[in-house]
Amino acid sequence: MLDDRYFMQQALREAHKAFENGEVPVGAVVVVNERIITRAHNLTETLNDVTAHAEMQAITAAANVLGGKYLTDCTLYVTVEPCPMCAGALRWAQISRVVYGASDEKRGYTQISPYLLHPKTTVTSGVLADDCADLMKLFFARFRK
Amino acid sequence: MLDDRYFMQQALREAHKAFENGEVPVGAVVVVNERIITRAHNLTETLNDVTAHAEMQAITAAANVLGGKYLTDCTLYVTVEPCPMCAGALRWAQISRVVYGASDEKRGYTQISPYLLHPKTTVTSGVLADDCADLMKLFFARFRK
Repeated sequence: MLDDRYFMQQALREAHKAFENGEVPVGAVVVVNERIITRAHNLTETLNDVTAHAEMQAITAAANVLGGKYLTDCTLYVTVEPCPMCAGALRWAQISRVVYGASDEKRGYTQISPYLLHPKTTVTSGVLADDCADLMKLFFARFRK
Repeated sequence: MLDDRYFMQQALREAHKAFENGEVPVGAVVVVNERIITRAHNLTETLNDVTAHAEMQAITAAANVLGGKYLTDCTLYVTVEPCPMCAGALRWAQISRVVYGASDEKRGYTQISPYLLHPKTTVTSGVLADDCADLMKLFFARFRK
């Protein structure tokens, strides 16, 4: 069934790829009409670039696929709550919907302001939250003691 | 003299390049030890990418030049107050100092929270503010009536 849990599973697959590469394990997919148009995972270490979060790459790639910079008919699924940078980018993209898994009580955008997202963007949180959070915990326990 | 006004002039040159290409005219340079290591201007229309703000490109390029993703000894000069996305990126980069020209009373990061930047980042605003703001006003009067 192509529901939120299904698409979050796909985002989690991306997060696992990040994990295997020693990257903080965050993955994302962008969906239009129940179809995944792009997949991405965190590449900040690989690219030596703090802007290379999964969401940023997903936004850029989705715009390329769609041929326009606005993602007004898109849903972003991401395993962890976006940071302010990514929320700001999602606002510029006017994305229709954001679905995230685990909350980020240190660096999530809601710690600063929910108004970082566009007022028309709807948000669903907590989808497969435990799976998403467990992967993060495993990463930090293993690599960043 | 290699002071803030000099480096803001260089950022303004970048902003003029953006203007000539039909882009919202924002320019930026990154400086280390009084040396410009990268120059960038807004490319959101050219690249069809909402994340292609001058600051984002400057951060990525500076990290490439330095060979590391943290910009702890860098100053970013940018003609207009950064948006929340760019402020969030500057926070991740732990940039030492941000100098901006014109304030942005609609979309500047300070409209949301000054805490979008890293607590160690120092900020100077208002350098060549009129020149930076005039270029923006001219752009919107000409292209976005």
